[in-house]
Amino acid sequence: MRAAVIGGGGYIGGELVRLLLQHPEIELTHVTSSKHSGRPLRSVHPNLRDQTDLVFVPDEEVTSADVVFLAVPHGAAIASMDRWASVAPRIVDLSADHRIVDDSLREQYYRGQAPDPGWLAKFVRGIPELHRDELRGASHISVAGCMANAGILALHPLAAAGLIDGPVQVDARTGSSGGGRTPDEGSHHPERSGALRMAKPHGHRHIAEIRQSTGAHVHMSVTAIEAVRGVQVVCRVTPSRRVSERELWSVFRAAYGNEPFVRLVRERSALHRLPEPKILSGTNYCDIGFALNADGDHLVVVAALDNLVKGGAGNAVHCFNIASGWDEAAGLRFAGLHPV
Amino acid sequence: MRAAVIGGGGYIGGELVRLLLQHPEIELTHVTSSKHSGRPLRSVHPNLRDQTDLVFVPDEEVTSADVVFLAVPHGAAIASMDRWASVAPRIVDLSADHRIVDDSLREQYYRGQAPDPGWLAKFVRGIPELHRDELRGASHISVAGCMANAGILALHPLAAAGLIDGPVQVDARTGSSGGGRTPDEGSHHPERSGALRMAKPHGHRHIAEIRQSTGAHVHMSVTAIEAVRGVQVVCRVTPSRRVSERELWSVFRAAYGNEPFVRLVRERSALHRLPEPKILSGTNYCDIGFALNADGDHLVVVAALDNLVKGGAGNAVHCFNIASGWDEAAGLRFAGLHPV
Amino acid sequence: MRAAVIGGGGYIGGELVRLLLQHPEIELTHVTSSKHSGRPLRSVHPNLRDQTDLVFVPDEEVTSADVVFLAVPHGAAIASMDRWASVAPRIVDLSADHRIVDDSLREQYYRGQAPDPGWLAKFVRGIPELHRDELRGASHISVAGCMANAGILALHPLAAAGLIDGPVQVDARTGSSGGGRTPDEGSHHPERSGALRMAKPHGHRHIAEIRQSTGAHVHMSVTAIEAVRGVQVVCRVTPSRRVSERELWSVFRAAYGNEPFVRLVRERSALHRLPEPKILSGTNYCDIGFALNADGDHLVVVAALDNLVKGGAGNAVHCFNIASGWDEAAGLRFAGLHPV
Amino acid sequence: MRAAVIGGGGYIGGELVRLLLQHPEIELTHVTSSKHSGRPLRSVHPNLRDQTDLVFVPDEEVTSADVVFLAVPHGAAIASMDRWASVAPRIVDLSADHRIVDDSLREQYYRGQAPDPGWLAKFVRGIPELHRDELRGASHISVAGCMANAGILALHPLAAAGLIDGPVQVDARTGSSGGGRTPDEGSHHPERSGALRMAKPHGHRHIAEIRQSTGAHVHMSVTAIEAVRGVQVVCRVTPSRRVSERELWSVFRAAYGNEPFVRLVRERSALHRLPEPKILSGTNYCDIGFALNADGDHLVVVAALDNLVKGGAGNAVHCFNIASGWDEAAGLRFAGLHPV
Repeated sequence: MRAAVIGGGGYIGGELVRLLLQHPEIELTHVTSSKHSGRPLRSVHPNLRDQTDLVFVPDEEVTSADVVFLAVPHGAAIASMDRWASVAPRIVDLSADHRIVDDSLREQYYRGQAPDPGWLAKFVRGIPELHRDELRGASHISVAGCMANAGILALHPLAAAGLIDGPVQVDARTGSSGGGRTPDEGSHHPERSGALRMAKPHGHRHIAEIRQSTGAHVHMSVTAIEAVRGVQVVCRVTPSRRVSERELWSVFRAAYGNEPFVRLVRERSALHRLPEPKILSGTNYCDIGFALNADGDHLVVVAALDNLVKGGAGNAVHCFNIASGWDEAAGLRFAGLHPV
Repeated sequence: MRAAVIGGGGYIGGELVRLLLQHPEIELTHVTSSKHSGRPLRSVHPNLRDQTDLVFVPDEEVTSADVVFLAVPHGAAIASMDRWASVAPRIVDLSADHRIVDDSLREQYYRGQAPDPGWLAKFVRGIPELHRDELRGASHISVAGCMANAGILALHPLAAAGLIDGPVQVDARTGSSGGGRTPDEGSHHPERSGALRMAKPHGHRHIAEIRQSTGAHVHMSVTAIEAVRGVQVVCRVTPSRRVSERELWSVFRAAYGNEPFVRLVRERSALHRLPEPKILSGTNYCDIGFALNADGDHLVVVAALDNLVKGGAGNAVHCFNIASGWDEAAGLRFAGLHPV
Repeated sequence: MRAAVIGGGGYIGGELVRLLLQHPEIELTHVTSSKHSGRPLRSVHPNLRDQTDLVFVPDEEVTSADVVFLAVPHGAAIASMDRWASVAPRIVDLSADHRIVDDSLREQYYRGQAPDPGWLAKFVRGIPELHRDELRGASHISVAGCMANAGILALHPLAAAGLIDGPVQVDARTGSSGGGRTPDEGSHHPERSGALRMAKPHGHRHIAEIRQSTGAHVHMSVTAIEAVRGVQVVCRVTPSRRVSERELWSVFRAAYGNEPFVRLVRERSALHRLPEPKILSGTNYCDIGFALNADGDHLVVVAALDNLVKGGAGNAVHCFNIASGWDEAAGLRFAGLHPV
Repeated sequence: MRAAVIGGGGYIGGELVRLLLQHPEIELTHVTSSKHSGRPLRSVHPNLRDQTDLVFVPDEEVTSADVVFLAVPHGAAIASMDRWASVAPRIVDLSADHRIVDDSLREQYYRGQAPDPGWLAKFVRGIPELHRDELRGASHISVAGCMANAGILALHPLAAAGLIDGPVQVDARTGSSGGGRTPDEGSHHPERSGALRMAKPHGHRHIAEIRQSTGAHVHMSVTAIEAVRGVQVVCRVTPSRRVSERELWSVFRAAYGNEPFVRLVRERSALHRLPEPKILSGTNYCDIGFALNADGDHLVVVAALDNLVKGGAGNAVHCFNIASGWDEAAGLRFAGLHPV
């Protein structure tokens, strides 16, 4: 299949290129960037040295493809759907534009950014662990947000089992690459380095996705931490009834035991007892673990992933593998590094 | 006054030395270390080059002082109180040994480490913002734990105002220096660097102190983050009644408006909107800020401090300044750095 | 082929396991560790979760293999050659034991650690770019040291072309994983974090390898820098005659133009103008670039690699691929990440 | 004395403010910033919370002062000398504008940026260790560049003693704050974090200052390293004759034995054997050490400092203390932190 990456100069776009170049079923034919048009990909993504001779082209040069991946800013997918639909029969949208199907949630968190309802109806939620059946054969896929994906995977089994009582407190921690490629005061190294900065104590847009997928009442704050890649969510749940660790393991194993990209973490060593993002860099894994307090009335669920892979480009490839009937793990077998 | 630092080879001990060397009222006469005995202080604390000619001595060489600061491992203060009481009329204990006065809390969190009740009764809690009157003239001071101190300062005004409903969720984040000077697998740089490691999801000992000082029902997890110094606590509170931001500011200003080492943070810039530890390295400040959600039913309070200073050596000096009737800020005027 | 990794609990051993598990021609049958015997690999190398069910076994359990990879401490390979020779017809030694064939160099840099001359004579130097022909069909391979490999690849083309006049100054910078898995004072995170520590200004053992392979007179200092993975060498060369940048490019292209794992870096962007290690984490690439000053009398050559991969486990696999007549890049296709 | 800081919104300007606010002889009356005019200082320099109520003012509001400190971009001091001369009888210029007195050096490294010769002649070099006598009573001081200062202090004693043969290779490493406060692609955290980036292999402007002050033939490359603050220079010298370590110590002790802000580092512990910048953050120290190889023909001298303090604001205050006849260390007594 001939694929095009739209918005390939950004970080998510760069990861798409890296993954698609090694994908056994895909031929990457175009990578667009208005800013970098004419330059070789490696000048922007130095990890692509010797991997490809492609140069960035403007959007207009993409006239035909089997699939386009939209790694564009929020709002830009809405504005260009007709254009891309005329280019390719399959669209994988990595922007936020087609994520929220609930109008009131969208109005609350994305005021004024409504997609065309017809297009919206065509898109399948890009979360394989929840929507695998719908993804099979899907032509339009909307990939989840990075922190949202971690939060949804951490909470969905509990929510589905009716085990959540009252609000869930989500403490999300994120590396700097989640802010994208454009420098600003907040991303300036002397300010951002060593940060432990709660930039968003309330109202982050990814709450909308977690609410939509789990039905949970979610309070979420987002803290910028010292990392380039990586998201970790710490979810604090009051169980709706007395549960044991054993029962919780059953719930999570039933949900994810056969999932290729969710790993349940259960180590006795304090070093690796609960998930952390650094060993996940470059991988498509979401690691999940939990700890119940001795009184059994407070449950901490921790999930971690690489925001650019499982929280973006890798998840898009995974979804598209399912849609196309391919091996789900095609192009996504990197195991991750340790130490790192 | 002639002061001795017992256990001066550790990180808290090193900070005590740094602060006492520049203190206008104190002459530092002895710094003990069994491991480093005979070596100059600068060989262990390289920041003390050219600051002092002192060499480490064994404990036995300290036979008389006006005050001894115990920067010793937990349990070691209990075991040596008679010895140090014979050396000096004033003891500032930076270990955990005399922090918990509630027997059931101690039994729950420090099983089997009970101090002598007679000695325990002599010690004043080393939290100036809560116990200033008792500290005046005090001869025995027990300095609070680092994360405990941050949590207590964040929550005490709300607890005292009856504004806390139900359990408080505390997310504590800590740098590596909090683990002390002895290398182990968890502190090995390739493992610890870039960590986001919830080593202690439940049951941390500092919970006991927060409960003791605030009466709040506290769930606290501790995450090791990429930093050498610094503690940040994020406290999630359900207000017991409808409150406004304005009222909350009043509560915090009433509590801390005149405090020399608590700063209330209220910036509009997302960069400095809530406290973070990096700009506090080396200072005795605890910065506190908060954010109430739009519905008014979820309050996030954030406090940050340097675990070795406001969370240890600096707080000890502050307490002793009060006890001695000196300028409270003597020796503690370093403002901190930016950028850093 | 059935392979065993001896000393699989260390960092180099862990990388060997990661690479061999995904190698199309190799079945990894045993991974040994005396310390971790009986534990699953993932408990020590958390990136191997879901990748393998292997558990560590003691050395004694390895009784037969087609190849053994020795990821053991220096000295331990010498001591156990007869044992491993009885187990497998092929040995890839990642320790330093069989690297130095020049007796006087070994005596100077590895006093008292002489291998058996008979065994030494069987070993081929594990540097594909210099010794590919000898590696073909080789049964015994001695893999180069991490900084040595970078220095050799940076300098060999210039030395072979007679372009080096007088001593070469090599400034080597290394991450913390190069020091191995055992914690000590120097690897303790509060001390090692943010370090810029010239632990070894003169006399590092890797000088012996660079001298052996290039004939250059080398001064090398080693600085520990803030990184877990990564080596960068900055080589300062006085050209033996007037050369142009163009001629230098010809020299390097002639040497490495067809090499699968050496990339010549020639970007105009200051951001990616010269090689740096961070984008090489996990890859088997050595990136090389240079800059000649305006007067043409001072040449700076920069090479970077991942010390655990191109400087260790990946290079071992590359060498073994050549020895076995396989695709040279088998198991080594990871392109690396950006940003990271 | 009433002081004004011109350009107080930058990093050097912020450090000047921090130091001058605690200076016993100085009253800071104005801090200017065109960008931040009207905002409180703490909104830009969060470490100044509770330290001052000053707000940024435009340059025009400064009409009279006893001294102005120019923390302005290169070129801006040249352009505004008449203005500032009418405001204050004393000017301390922290820009590069009045550093180079040798016309040919300036032409080579600062083409087209020539100051007025009359003004230039009034300025004294701001390097106390070399120009203390001229600084006494000086009204106009030009403060050295950060890497230049480290390089000059490392090499001057050797150059003065005739101990340098041929070119000196200087490997300069610098943190991100040296690039100033304006975000760009190179300072964007995902790109800058973990960097080991030789942005300037040849021709850096600070070479001009080192040549001017030492007469040495200097090759210098500059590598951006993972740090916010800190400069380290590694200078490789071929001694002009056989020297011993003992003689070298004599040379350095004669030069700096009585200097309040140069410390000679001579530890046996590999951890603190040679200077590194992290323990110098916030201090006005330059630490210097060296290592001679066994053959005695290759000398490595290492110097480290905080680029914003000893390499900028602190050095300016030191120079002004000398000029004013005050205690040289006034306002500069912070010892630095460990661990950090």
